[in-house]
Amino acid sequence: MDPKGRSKWELDTPCLTIDLDLLDDNLQTMQARVSAAGKALRPHAKTHKCSMLAKMQLAAGAVGLCAAKVSEAEALVSAGIEGVLITGAVATPAKAARLKSLLRKTRSLMAVVDHPAGVELLEKQLSGSGLRLDVLVDLDVGHHRTGVVPGKAMELVNRVMASRSLWLRGIQAYAGHVQHIPRYVDRRAASLKALKQAAAVFRELQRRDEGCTIFSASGTGTAATDLAVPELTELQAGSYALMDAEYMAIECEDGAECSDYRPALTLLTTVVGVGHGRQVTVDAGLKALYRDGGRPCLLNSEFPKLQYDWFGDEYGKVSAVGRGALLPELGQVLELVVSHCDPTVNLFDHFYITRSGKVVDVWPIDLRGRCQ
Amino acid sequence: MDPKGRSKWELDTPCLTIDLDLLDDNLQTMQARVSAAGKALRPHAKTHKCSMLAKMQLAAGAVGLCAAKVSEAEALVSAGIEGVLITGAVATPAKAARLKSLLRKTRSLMAVVDHPAGVELLEKQLSGSGLRLDVLVDLDVGHHRTGVVPGKAMELVNRVMASRSLWLRGIQAYAGHVQHIPRYVDRRAASLKALKQAAAVFRELQRRDEGCTIFSASGTGTAATDLAVPELTELQAGSYALMDAEYMAIECEDGAECSDYRPALTLLTTVVGVGHGRQVTVDAGLKALYRDGGRPCLLNSEFPKLQYDWFGDEYGKVSAVGRGALLPELGQVLELVVSHCDPTVNLFDHFYITRSGKVVDVWPIDLRGRCQ
Repeated sequence: MDPKGRSKWELDTPCLTIDLDLLDDNLQTMQARVSAAGKALRPHAKTHKCSMLAKMQLAAGAVGLCAAKVSEAEALVSAGIEGVLITGAVATPAKAARLKSLLRKTRSLMAVVDHPAGVELLEKQLSGSGLRLDVLVDLDVGHHRTGVVPGKAMELVNRVMASRSLWLRGIQAYAGHVQHIPRYVDRRAASLKALKQAAAVFRELQRRDEGCTIFSASGTGTAATDLAVPELTELQAGSYALMDAEYMAIECEDGAECSDYRPALTLLTTVVGVGHGRQVTVDAGLKALYRDGGRPCLLNSEFPKLQYDWFGDEYGKVSAVGRGALLPELGQVLELVVSHCDPTVNLFDHFYITRSGKVVDVWPIDLRGRCQ
Repeated sequence: MDPKGRSKWELDTPCLTIDLDLLDDNLQTMQARVSAAGKALRPHAKTHKCSMLAKMQLAAGAVGLCAAKVSEAEALVSAGIEGVLITGAVATPAKAARLKSLLRKTRSLMAVVDHPAGVELLEKQLSGSGLRLDVLVDLDVGHHRTGVVPGKAMELVNRVMASRSLWLRGIQAYAGHVQHIPRYVDRRAASLKALKQAAAVFRELQRRDEGCTIFSASGTGTAATDLAVPELTELQAGSYALMDAEYMAIECEDGAECSDYRPALTLLTTVVGVGHGRQVTVDAGLKALYRDGGRPCLLNSEFPKLQYDWFGDEYGKVSAVGRGALLPELGQVLELVVSHCDPTVNLFDHFYITRSGKVVDVWPIDLRGRCQ
């Protein structure tokens, strides 16, 4: 049955919905801020995994999209999206070969390197192909996950500059460890500290080569803070588009960070079990609502005193907290802001796009499952 | 590139592999035990979400398959599988309508009911259609998630028996709350206590109607225990086929429960980041290895002192524990027993099937994402 034109409350559950007006507001707000600061926005597609949403971001003014993995980039390129930056370095010949195939389809592709062995892998693939790949040197600014430590960055820079197959365009410095620091002042200080190291490397790089014009970093938790860093040229924020309970929970300064982004993404789930005391069972469990990032937030205003918790693979438990809490009936549909949008989106094949509570479109989550 | 014939260590990662010999051993072992006890096996497909694996279970002697949701059952029926029991009750007209459509395709379908409102929903859909649906009354034996409490079971039984569209075939009594109790004796006692209540209802039911021949229950954690319950007629275990670190961690009596099932399912992940001290970064994070059920178990014998932990959506951290631990190099592939097989399988589109380390087949995970 075509869901278009129907009320979202009639959808079969569990399912994900996006309020198009809220999404559009989020996209415009972030783009306006970034543009006002004279920077570029290259939003991360790992959050929404949807090329239709990516195209909205481009239409709003983004210079391209970030992809976490080569397979995500493949889907974005298949959808005709230009300016894709793959934010994770490749470490095997198989992945370097996939990257080369992708580069044949679009020259606007950009990758990162964080180790001499990775540079060698790419050179080996590209040698003699007539192809040249734009790369950023990925810096570890404190997360200790990927990236070269700043002290070894220039050594790697030299290695890349000596390469005939790679063209160094700048640096990447994502501070993943600071995005969810609860207190605003702490998060701000941690982000500025992280980016300061990267800025020093970037300045040195620019003295060496004026063609190095990209300093890509930041996330939804620190975007407003990071816009004040003069050297930064582009932001990689992703979650601002859909938002989630984890980002809604961090403290925000008025007008800064997350406070202006509203939860466009929600999960609908139905009460399928009653008669078990002060709780009901709903049809969204681990497989529909990823257990990560804290507690999801129940939106139905008629049930103010209820709380969701996971109840196995297929079910959730919605319990009364406090006295006098009304419990929903069997068949009642509840709406939740998900805990952590990225891995939850990755559980579904499409978004139901709504406006004023009516379904206006269905968008495939075409990057879903692309973790390679 | 066709992966068949290649070494599993050459696969692009992250990916899921199944060792066909271990899988076959697990299937044969469980089936032999269940058959020896004079019971039937209707394995749960929610674990593996793969109709090809389901067909192996049928070939080994299973009487049918369990499906958690209507959408899972749809995929099994599409693949030509008979004897599907949907273990979760329907609670909305939309879901009842899907169930009716499915019943038109296969009369061997069975559903559960746990509330008079659910009975009414099904009756309303089926009335005048000429269709009749086999149902089990689902009992809550202590998990308080789904099912009718035993004290109200006979009331619901009467309601079903009065229906012209439903045919009562027996009961279901899954004790989900006891499957992972760590100590064997505690788990055994809890399971027998749970099934005792159900057995009493089943005996009463059989006195009322000899056509009620099904008492379906149990899981991998309690299968051997439950086989000794005389009233029980069929087992719904699922995880025994693939196994996971969570089930491997529970205490087992020799020859009982999980000790004879070995991890057929593993996840391959590649080292993509080094140079961050006594740890390396691998390419499987939240989106490839579901964070639930405890710590995954690293199998590579050349790295005995390493431990996996999650490191964001896309990455994992493999750290040295204890002195003298060797760290893997960039590009090294590591093999893990996943924490909780069900939600992890649900993150991928196919299994690479291996034998002696070589890929012999690729099976679609065709029930993936079917959480409705």
